[in-house]
Amino acid sequence: MNDSLITQPTLLLNESICRANMQRMAQKAHQHNLQFKPHMKTHQSAEIGEWLRDYGTEAITVSSVSMASYFAGHGWHDITIAFPCNLRETESINTLAGNISLTLLVNGLSTGRTLQKRLAHPVEVYIELDTGSGRTGLRPSEVTAIISLVDYLTDEETTMLQWKGFYSHPGHSYNARSNKEVRSVHQSVLNKISRLRNELGSAYGAYEVCIGDTPCCSTGTDFSGIDAISPGNFVFYDLMQARIGSCTVSDIATAVACPVVDWYADRNQLAIYGGAIHFSKESLTENGTTHFGQAAVTKGKEQAWSVSDPETYLARLSQEHGIVQCSPQTFEQFSIGDLITILPVHSCLTAHLLGRFQLVGSGVRIEQFG
Amino acid sequence: MNDSLITQPTLLLNESICRANMQRMAQKAHQHNLQFKPHMKTHQSAEIGEWLRDYGTEAITVSSVSMASYFAGHGWHDITIAFPCNLRETESINTLAGNISLTLLVNGLSTGRTLQKRLAHPVEVYIELDTGSGRTGLRPSEVTAIISLVDYLTDEETTMLQWKGFYSHPGHSYNARSNKEVRSVHQSVLNKISRLRNELGSAYGAYEVCIGDTPCCSTGTDFSGIDAISPGNFVFYDLMQARIGSCTVSDIATAVACPVVDWYADRNQLAIYGGAIHFSKESLTENGTTHFGQAAVTKGKEQAWSVSDPETYLARLSQEHGIVQCSPQTFEQFSIGDLITILPVHSCLTAHLLGRFQLVGSGVRIEQFG
Repeated sequence: MNDSLITQPTLLLNESICRANMQRMAQKAHQHNLQFKPHMKTHQSAEIGEWLRDYGTEAITVSSVSMASYFAGHGWHDITIAFPCNLRETESINTLAGNISLTLLVNGLSTGRTLQKRLAHPVEVYIELDTGSGRTGLRPSEVTAIISLVDYLTDEETTMLQWKGFYSHPGHSYNARSNKEVRSVHQSVLNKISRLRNELGSAYGAYEVCIGDTPCCSTGTDFSGIDAISPGNFVFYDLMQARIGSCTVSDIATAVACPVVDWYADRNQLAIYGGAIHFSKESLTENGTTHFGQAAVTKGKEQAWSVSDPETYLARLSQEHGIVQCSPQTFEQFSIGDLITILPVHSCLTAHLLGRFQLVGSGVRIEQFG
Repeated sequence: MNDSLITQPTLLLNESICRANMQRMAQKAHQHNLQFKPHMKTHQSAEIGEWLRDYGTEAITVSSVSMASYFAGHGWHDITIAFPCNLRETESINTLAGNISLTLLVNGLSTGRTLQKRLAHPVEVYIELDTGSGRTGLRPSEVTAIISLVDYLTDEETTMLQWKGFYSHPGHSYNARSNKEVRSVHQSVLNKISRLRNELGSAYGAYEVCIGDTPCCSTGTDFSGIDAISPGNFVFYDLMQARIGSCTVSDIATAVACPVVDWYADRNQLAIYGGAIHFSKESLTENGTTHFGQAAVTKGKEQAWSVSDPETYLARLSQEHGIVQCSPQTFEQFSIGDLITILPVHSCLTAHLLGRFQLVGSGVRIEQFG
């Protein structure tokens, strides 16, 4: 590509591929009778959020209070903040709770009690489950702690907190490197939740379980015991998801166009304007080579991206510099002043860093929050 | 610390330590008869740039055309863009060149010829030397290519480009893990430049050599053959620089205050609001442990930071989550809702991501460019 209007590292977005990803996931949720509450942290854009409404989305998930405020300001009335409740932001949480249906993660009694004291408007509450990622939440096997928290949340004196159910982000699915491995993670998550459901029995009436990782939501075929899904990355996907097996490279909806600023024929390397502040330092190691992205070409009517060749990859990043190691054939195709398109390893971080999108084809620019 | 106004990850800046770092480097430049052209990419802030004027700074270095435009708009009249010239931005370069004394890096004849054709206002030009980092620039041993480029730049028909000398960022000093190793890198850089000076002889009259990495500029005691320095990171330093030997931890001028949002007594871990979008995924491996930052405490009149204990570090990052692995003693000091202060591994990336500073003591907020 050689769009003369692109002068700096620019995040390209293929709207039709992005919409196909949205439609596919929304349909899957519908087929499995799951509420679809997509996570907005990947795109962080009011406009892209609007596209999700076209596929029936009414409730969304975000990862911070400020992101919730942004989307509430853009007409979303049912928002889950899928992050352990930050007690230092109770003032903003209160404002939100007065205006929309807000769901928080509360993982302990002390957080619950503080919220009960400080909130002026009721919120709904998920208890976060650590189903194997080891990051945050209670382990489903911690039945006593969970029951004690549920008892507190369902007590009639806990007027500001209404228990809704459980939330889990099985982030350990990101360690999977095949469809089979993701399914094994997914099955273990379902098993843990099933055992917890058995422990709780029917004493607390109906409650909801929501899970939220793109690998399990993309590849899973069984959602027994699950009521809602909140994946985020699926709208764009990326090389990591393709490597995991959540998608094919042709499903990736974003790539970064970078100016070529220098070239080194003796080592088949291009220097590009595109560094750690554009891509992030998220890397992927494949066949012993660690890279930060791969060069892409487009093909077909949909202008889907594909990896130009496996020997051409973003080998090195400093703040603003990127070094692309090329195969000899690919190297010869580029001159200083050209653009090279790079598929990101992790589209969430890359999109956050670049802050806006340029639509493939129309060149229309779409802004992000913040 | 427990500043009730801090509700989200916040970049703290200790002005007196930052000014002491500036003064020390400016004095060193003066003592060695070097022009001091500090790199602004670390702080990217007009206000912090003003502090540098207090120590005699008149010329500055930046890493992008847009950063040059920002600082030109804040009264800087002598700016070097220390990045291989991006030919896709010649329009903005032209505007800058019409208003200030602008220096570009031109590493090849094709870039030089394109600029000569497109520019309406003359610029000064450094040829970038790759003195060992293997990133960008000509190797000093490529004497034929260098002479051919100098010939072009000094030709009287090359009216838009005025050859100024050589620029090098010996980024391989970042691989050093002791003062001795940095000095060895620095000496090899001086040797390479000295040999190139001998090759060129006096045929081209006087020209300037500028080098720009914080480790060599901080620890070097010999600057033979060097005329100017353009370090950037030294204004803040960070854990990586302390590890390299460029500074002590008490010289670090920035840290990130993060809300504690959850805690896990069985593994002595705190969950914090502070993730990859705040710290970047730059990591440091010490004694077999990889971390993204270390918890800090302040002490003394200057409120300098020190590492709270070596067993307490930022062990894991996702987009907005951080997991702090604590020693049992440190773990016990924190509750949900507290703030924990983390020293960053790489202050340039962390400052870029957080986008603004809060001054320690006064709480005054300072904005960044972009």
